[in-house]
Amino acid sequence: MARKFTENKLVIASHNPGKVREISALLAPFEVEVISAGALGLPEPEETGMTFLENAEMKARASAAGANLPALADDSGLVAPALNGAPGIYSARWAGPDKNFDRAMDRVKKELGAGDPAAHFTAALALAWPDGHVERFEGKVHGRLAWPKRGDQGFGYDPIFIPDGYDITFGEMDPGHKHTISHRANAFKQLINACF
Amino acid sequence: MARKFTENKLVIASHNPGKVREISALLAPFEVEVISAGALGLPEPEETGMTFLENAEMKARASAAGANLPALADDSGLVAPALNGAPGIYSARWAGPDKNFDRAMDRVKKELGAGDPAAHFTAALALAWPDGHVERFEGKVHGRLAWPKRGDQGFGYDPIFIPDGYDITFGEMDPGHKHTISHRANAFKQLINACF
Repeated sequence: MARKFTENKLVIASHNPGKVREISALLAPFEVEVISAGALGLPEPEETGMTFLENAEMKARASAAGANLPALADDSGLVAPALNGAPGIYSARWAGPDKNFDRAMDRVKKELGAGDPAAHFTAALALAWPDGHVERFEGKVHGRLAWPKRGDQGFGYDPIFIPDGYDITFGEMDPGHKHTISHRANAFKQLINACF
Repeated sequence: MARKFTENKLVIASHNPGKVREISALLAPFEVEVISAGALGLPEPEETGMTFLENAEMKARASAAGANLPALADDSGLVAPALNGAPGIYSARWAGPDKNFDRAMDRVKKELGAGDPAAHFTAALALAWPDGHVERFEGKVHGRLAWPKRGDQGFGYDPIFIPDGYDITFGEMDPGHKHTISHRANAFKQLINACF
């Protein structure tokens, strides 16, 4: 049985204003005041985990301890089983410091070659309390990789990912619709059902 | 059609004497003089690849260029699909600078929890020529993760890996037998068939 969130303030363990806004909107029905770790002057911990869940947990714990408030963190990426899970937790890093996902997508194409294009996006969420308790959730959306890149919606690897049951990429999908089927949506659904 | 290896000297892109001896033995039938990158004073390149094959290729290319001779490199690790491919290309790194695989195996257990224990070892080999040509091979052995750790043969994650068709771990298996069914054996078989 997951611990319920009964507080009225929640730190989002992120310095990305877009992410903080998005999470804020998702939690609006629960009357939670959302504060970003950046606004509190908390440092961004290094992502040294082995899995998405470990990374999310590390970030959530660091913010909960630093702010003495419950904190929510996420970590996500693209997973290609034919590439032994790559790019995985390093999905963002493969785009380089200039966040060049065009290059990262080309690299995935080169490495995959004629390999199985099955892939999924994974999103991990961790909600940590200052007393050390943590709840963790992982959402996925399965699909396949396809080239050429298609669409200018979304971000990251979206232009090469076609979710199962569709014939368009995440890059071509209306963001409002993507948000109903995405890995992140799935993880948030689990979090909300369990803790809110 | 893979390029054949017709030279009589081959650099092993490794500073690990055990690995150089093992590869030397495997290639003995082909009358190849094996030289280690360490003995040539070549630096060990950083493993910055996204996949085992990329890492092997980077190392082989660096040694081939540095020595102006063909060079062979490998990269390998444990892949758990339920962990989105972790520990993957970071298998060695999770054991830390003190190579504490006990701790790494405990961490895999904690993260896997009640998740699917299916896993595989992957070994990548890259053979690079000074002119830039590269041949790449990937071998796998499928199985499952099981605790407690069993056996003191082998190394790394061997004590928690039971290959398909067996009821003992790689850690309990006679090394001579393991070498006939392992991921590395499979990759070498492909290399030898294609290039020797």
